[in-house]
Amino acid sequence: MWQDRRILDLFGIDHPLLLAPMAGSAGSALAVAVAKAGGLPALPCALLSPEQMRAEIGVIRQQATGPLNLNFFCHTPPEPDPAREQAWRAKIAALYGPVPDGPDAPPRRPFDEAACAVVEDSRPEVVSFHFGLPAAPLLARVRATGARIIASATTVDEAVWLERSGVDAVIAQGAEAGGHRGMFLGLDTATQTGTFSLVPLVTDAVKVPVIAAGGVSDGRAMAAALVLGAAAVQVGTAFLRSPEALTSTLHRKALAAGGPTAMTNVITGRPARGFTTRLVRDVGPINPDAPAFPLASNAIASLRKAAEADGRPDFSPVWAGQSFSLASEEPATVIAERIVRDAARLLDR
Amino acid sequence: MWQDRRILDLFGIDHPLLLAPMAGSAGSALAVAVAKAGGLPALPCALLSPEQMRAEIGVIRQQATGPLNLNFFCHTPPEPDPAREQAWRAKIAALYGPVPDGPDAPPRRPFDEAACAVVEDSRPEVVSFHFGLPAAPLLARVRATGARIIASATTVDEAVWLERSGVDAVIAQGAEAGGHRGMFLGLDTATQTGTFSLVPLVTDAVKVPVIAAGGVSDGRAMAAALVLGAAAVQVGTAFLRSPEALTSTLHRKALAAGGPTAMTNVITGRPARGFTTRLVRDVGPINPDAPAFPLASNAIASLRKAAEADGRPDFSPVWAGQSFSLASEEPATVIAERIVRDAARLLDR
Repeated sequence: MWQDRRILDLFGIDHPLLLAPMAGSAGSALAVAVAKAGGLPALPCALLSPEQMRAEIGVIRQQATGPLNLNFFCHTPPEPDPAREQAWRAKIAALYGPVPDGPDAPPRRPFDEAACAVVEDSRPEVVSFHFGLPAAPLLARVRATGARIIASATTVDEAVWLERSGVDAVIAQGAEAGGHRGMFLGLDTATQTGTFSLVPLVTDAVKVPVIAAGGVSDGRAMAAALVLGAAAVQVGTAFLRSPEALTSTLHRKALAAGGPTAMTNVITGRPARGFTTRLVRDVGPINPDAPAFPLASNAIASLRKAAEADGRPDFSPVWAGQSFSLASEEPATVIAERIVRDAARLLDR
Repeated sequence: MWQDRRILDLFGIDHPLLLAPMAGSAGSALAVAVAKAGGLPALPCALLSPEQMRAEIGVIRQQATGPLNLNFFCHTPPEPDPAREQAWRAKIAALYGPVPDGPDAPPRRPFDEAACAVVEDSRPEVVSFHFGLPAAPLLARVRATGARIIASATTVDEAVWLERSGVDAVIAQGAEAGGHRGMFLGLDTATQTGTFSLVPLVTDAVKVPVIAAGGVSDGRAMAAALVLGAAAVQVGTAFLRSPEALTSTLHRKALAAGGPTAMTNVITGRPARGFTTRLVRDVGPINPDAPAFPLASNAIASLRKAAEADGRPDFSPVWAGQSFSLASEEPATVIAERIVRDAARLLDR
């Protein structure tokens, strides 16, 4: 059925479709649904404690057979910079009124000793990283578990860097993708590359298989990505409206209403694609003064809480890829099966 | 050979490949070369006087049979804004030293009475517009010649607007594309959409055939664009290094050297994708203070002239799409034939 079997053989899956790990919008239920369609399920761990990771992994292992991808952020937590944070809070306060100190936003944990212990215990078949790779000792421990290791690249240079670091496959994350950009050799959003250019260029530059991400929301896109040279696709936004996703009601409303998306760093401090909410329009989409990831979240934590209680996504991360209008409210298994079936038919004609 | 024959029948061409009209880098020689490969040749007229247009059309008609696409900009020339221009000149002068008054940059002519007369005389089979469409009376005169009319859209809204205005096909210009963005319902580059998302979304939104542009530099990309729903592709950057292109030596050197591209408005006043030259890095890539198109060119005209004489592209428009590294120095007919052949093979398997 699939001409290029590299990713199928590498991960032990039926179809070259990976669930994008969407921290905050995806948990065990979505993973199970995608596994049932023959794709590779993912559990995003960036917002989970080790205990929560273990619980979610337990649910997935109980309800689905086959491989599992555990996904981690691996940013270096920034040095505290009180002056910068204070200036940012002042800017926010000037626009929206006083910003109370705390509560801070939920922490976004980089891959660390505790997370590595979860990997060593739970033995996921695949471990994926965003924002580069963890330090060599931690990476070696992951490799020693036998897990396949994959990571995101947003440029050819990042893809080559990852290949040299020994990853088993590279995710080419085109500019269309929703959520945080995996960029790690630089943070300049103005030069980020679209999926249509990035996938063939990365395919030419590395020997490992390439997984296309960004704008892959239906069978046409999956088929096109494989024609461009990808061995598989990673799909996220297409599942955001499915019942299995943890997408908030506000987020679901925004997806239904539509509106442009942009890469913005004013919500978390790192560039991520989402709807242009009030905050993004007022101080972004890119603002060089935003505190480093994930500290920018703190200044807006209380504003976000109040706005959400009021039904407004003004300060919330409302991530979405550029093909969000193709997302449907159907069960995720149905969505995944249709993408796979339509892609196979298009490639077969 | 091609499953979707709409564009082939509409224009009377053998292969669904259009030469992108690259004002300043393409003239009759490149048009003839692409016509010989069975694609639709284009003559960009934005930088040509009516006399030059007639001369170039004469060469193409003499050396190639088949249809021809005459391309025009149709921006509304801006109201003079001396204060804004003076402030911009002062900003430039603060960085690079005194900016002598004049000479102004070569004018970029919008489609007007004189250009329309050329269309009426020379009877091109296709007329294409960038930056929207001309006023209704001029458009009606073009239509009365029997020419097929096409225009660029960078969003779904622009595509729907063009279809309602009666175009025969829409060019979906993805964010990867080099040169000026065709955007006309807004100028916000942060929300521009990649080819991979734009093509299927536009295909779903309009009934007229869609021509994919942006990142189409080889057979993989052409095949992928057709899989995404496009009826044809428009190819520009892939030809920039061919001997038939008018690309300057400086521009060719930049294409060979590589480096990131970005959408910038600091060279002409309208967003266009090109290499991040010194000017773009220093005051861009997007600067809200840049004078309106095409007036921004004036402040840097003398700096550009001096730098180019010195072999530096610091202030030159060095347009390139994101797949520029796939451009080769081969004859344009060879390039076009290979793109077509590779695409056909990929779609045929």
